[in-house]
Amino acid sequence: MIVQTERVRYVETDMMGVVHHSNYLRWFEVGRVAWLRAAGVDLWDLMNDGIVFPITKINIQYKNSAYYDDVIDICTTMTAFSKAKMEFSYKIVRQKDGKVLTEGSSCNVFTDKDGKIIRLTNAYFDKINELYKKEVEE
Amino acid sequence: MIVQTERVRYVETDMMGVVHHSNYLRWFEVGRVAWLRAAGVDLWDLMNDGIVFPITKINIQYKNSAYYDDVIDICTTMTAFSKAKMEFSYKIVRQKDGKVLTEGSSCNVFTDKDGKIIRLTNAYFDKINELYKKEVEE
Amino acid sequence: MIVQTERVRYVETDMMGVVHHSNYLRWFEVGRVAWLRAAGVDLWDLMNDGIVFPITKINIQYKNSAYYDDVIDICTTMTAFSKAKMEFSYKIVRQKDGKVLTEGSSCNVFTDKDGKIIRLTNAYFDKINELYKKEVEE
Amino acid sequence: MIVQTERVRYVETDMMGVVHHSNYLRWFEVGRVAWLRAAGVDLWDLMNDGIVFPITKINIQYKNSAYYDDVIDICTTMTAFSKAKMEFSYKIVRQKDGKVLTEGSSCNVFTDKDGKIIRLTNAYFDKINELYKKEVEE
Repeated sequence: MIVQTERVRYVETDMMGVVHHSNYLRWFEVGRVAWLRAAGVDLWDLMNDGIVFPITKINIQYKNSAYYDDVIDICTTMTAFSKAKMEFSYKIVRQKDGKVLTEGSSCNVFTDKDGKIIRLTNAYFDKINELYKKEVEE
Repeated sequence: MIVQTERVRYVETDMMGVVHHSNYLRWFEVGRVAWLRAAGVDLWDLMNDGIVFPITKINIQYKNSAYYDDVIDICTTMTAFSKAKMEFSYKIVRQKDGKVLTEGSSCNVFTDKDGKIIRLTNAYFDKINELYKKEVEE
Repeated sequence: MIVQTERVRYVETDMMGVVHHSNYLRWFEVGRVAWLRAAGVDLWDLMNDGIVFPITKINIQYKNSAYYDDVIDICTTMTAFSKAKMEFSYKIVRQKDGKVLTEGSSCNVFTDKDGKIIRLTNAYFDKINELYKKEVEE
Repeated sequence: MIVQTERVRYVETDMMGVVHHSNYLRWFEVGRVAWLRAAGVDLWDLMNDGIVFPITKINIQYKNSAYYDDVIDICTTMTAFSKAKMEFSYKIVRQKDGKVLTEGSSCNVFTDKDGKIIRLTNAYFDKINELYKKEVEE
């Protein structure tokens, strides 16, 4: 599990006084990027190699509201991996009271720039797989 | 099914040249609001009556990318309704080629301003139920 | 002056119960695009011709708050134009009471995809200039 | 000058491959909040005391584009202060090459929850004024 800490921005709130529900998908993305960075994979390298990684599916459960200025931990774990796709699960937790705010999962595939499904090259596969296996063993 | 038409804004795209996946949740919201408006329910009235309607769950499948300036139809249908919760399903379709871009669903409950679960009053229930029943019959 | 009508989305509000101030820049963009469309210029054509149009300057005065579900008119006028740059002014007005919400202006230049300043080709210049001159005469 | 460091999120980019210009206003806000926090003022306290701080004016010059994953410093300085208003100036700098991305300024007033202009109480005034004076002397 890779943890990325963020602080809720004012702009992320809505007129109910809580974080608007769409922002959690943006935090999932921040978590996913952090996980890949921890695996040694920089999205710039993927993109420069012509590899795109469109999201195909997201599920999210909202459990408690986040508020302005809350410090949150975005906890990201890879749950499935092949040369064709990646699946992640997420848990967002408020630091000060340990409450789980949301849980969710995402699936993405790998494509070329024209949207054609491709298979990840070994260099990337091996890096990601190493952290994936390590997480599974834990 | 209530259809709300929108045009993709430049700001909604990302560096992959397509609409960022988080924006579809914002369009689902636009569709949900349009559905309730069609049922004669204005969110301002609900809020002024102290009724809040937090999202508890969203599922979304991404099928085709939306691009800048695409004209899209957000098609919203209510799939479950009680005094305690509402469920909607969504289909977003690009007008010019009829392609389905995303499909998804959301669930929300009714609470008071302190987050306590409440039951919808009859006045609101009846309005919403009328359009819900009409859709089911179609 | 070209008028584009929009309805305030829930996600555009913040915890003060009003539209977050950053969203007005997004509406200015919607207005600018509508103005160019009225002049017969589609941003896709510009981009496909390798022409980019980065913003270099924005001024904005906030006069009255917009609220959820307000129907607003984004009124856009071109105030300066050459083959090197475009300047627009904006006024955003709430329909139901005619109140001016914000006024502002933007400046953008034309560049190629590497960010090098270029001069607009005659075909685009003439289209834009025609609407610009027409507005000046009014 | 108070410096707040952020990393550019993927969602903040647009189809030109750069950060969308509206996001800088959101970073200015992050900078403003960080400055006030450094002065010992928490926006929650202000809001709980019924004090609101709407933006009345923003100017921004865009000098260089920010890209996905850039680490940026948001440098915020108070430039004018009274019990009626605050003015800040901002400079956003990319860490890796020291390039200034944007410069800008904002003005905000203090109001009550009905939008009526108020004067800041001494407790808040003194905290803010202390950091303001210290910055001026530097």
